[in-house]
Amino acid sequence: MTDRGILFVFSGPSGSGKGTILSNYFEKYDDQNIKYSVSATTRAPREGEVDGVNYYFISTKDFDNMIKNNELLEWTCYCDNKYGTPLKAVTKMLDNGTDMLLEIETEGAVNVKKMYPDAVSIFVLPPSVTELKHRLTGRATEEKDVINKRIQTAIKEIGMADQYDYVLLNDSLDSAVEGFRAIVMAERFKTNNNKNTISEVLKK
Amino acid sequence: MTDRGILFVFSGPSGSGKGTILSNYFEKYDDQNIKYSVSATTRAPREGEVDGVNYYFISTKDFDNMIKNNELLEWTCYCDNKYGTPLKAVTKMLDNGTDMLLEIETEGAVNVKKMYPDAVSIFVLPPSVTELKHRLTGRATEEKDVINKRIQTAIKEIGMADQYDYVLLNDSLDSAVEGFRAIVMAERFKTNNNKNTISEVLKK
Repeated sequence: MTDRGILFVFSGPSGSGKGTILSNYFEKYDDQNIKYSVSATTRAPREGEVDGVNYYFISTKDFDNMIKNNELLEWTCYCDNKYGTPLKAVTKMLDNGTDMLLEIETEGAVNVKKMYPDAVSIFVLPPSVTELKHRLTGRATEEKDVINKRIQTAIKEIGMADQYDYVLLNDSLDSAVEGFRAIVMAERFKTNNNKNTISEVLKK
Repeated sequence: MTDRGILFVFSGPSGSGKGTILSNYFEKYDDQNIKYSVSATTRAPREGEVDGVNYYFISTKDFDNMIKNNELLEWTCYCDNKYGTPLKAVTKMLDNGTDMLLEIETEGAVNVKKMYPDAVSIFVLPPSVTELKHRLTGRATEEKDVINKRIQTAIKEIGMADQYDYVLLNDSLDSAVEGFRAIVMAERFKTNNNKNTISEVLKK
């Protein structure tokens, strides 16, 4: 375990496969030391959703107060509901030495880096814009206009990739999963996260 | 391949197992994109040693000129002979996109970071000073005085570990080899090493 938990921020355009990379990582590696952050939301709980597990379900008034008091690492609006990452819950886990994982969109990720410069940000790149178009069209659940809009958003997001610490090219799922694992492991070996280890080696 | 090769600097006290980690890494993973740097030396070639492969064999006068002209990334004296890392040979390989590996002692490593701040430095930590004593005594090829001196040097070196980018605790050979691999892979995913990748994804 490192001296303090590491905050990993994971983003990528729709169709980049970021969700699949993470679910495959957790399936393949039993990594108990990294946890998904639980978001706060103003939307009503759906059947089976548990407060504090799936989300922290809070009122719009409470959410707005959190924004005002800088108690959210980042937040966003989606379909009239607000979603955000509560700073206190994340830092409490980090203090306990647990690594935290935020899967959020690009704008949120840039804000997290501003509020928490020690965050490690990873951007998932699709192999090409052409392949991304192919993947999004292949899903075929959306109108052409919606798909075109997603592609425009993706291009804008890829243009922000250079603000991240790492870029993970997802040209093969296996190599992207291994890449994510390598980044998580390597960050845990960073000297800044292991000052206690060094002094313990000297003491023992 | 990254935009430019990465310079890895690998150090650790005598008995930390740094050489074994590297030889196991190259045995297990067929990593063709990282090469050992060839040192320059003033010592005479031994039987079978080839100039430009094992070492660049040069005269003391040439070596001293290289020092004077800042043409060595680092250098050291050992048994009346000088050994050093020629800057030009290293940067040529880096320019071609090949990662370079320097296995050097602590003082040299600190100097490399000064001359080439993009270098990625890794320090191999033994599990404890007690274990290090045990390993060095176990070899039993040296006098007690020599061993004690080595341990004192090791303690001094471990005290410099916090100047490295990464510390790799060698409490198990397997996990240290995996750790080294993770660091090499992760560094290859750093955004700074992949600006070309980002623009290619957008172009394609």
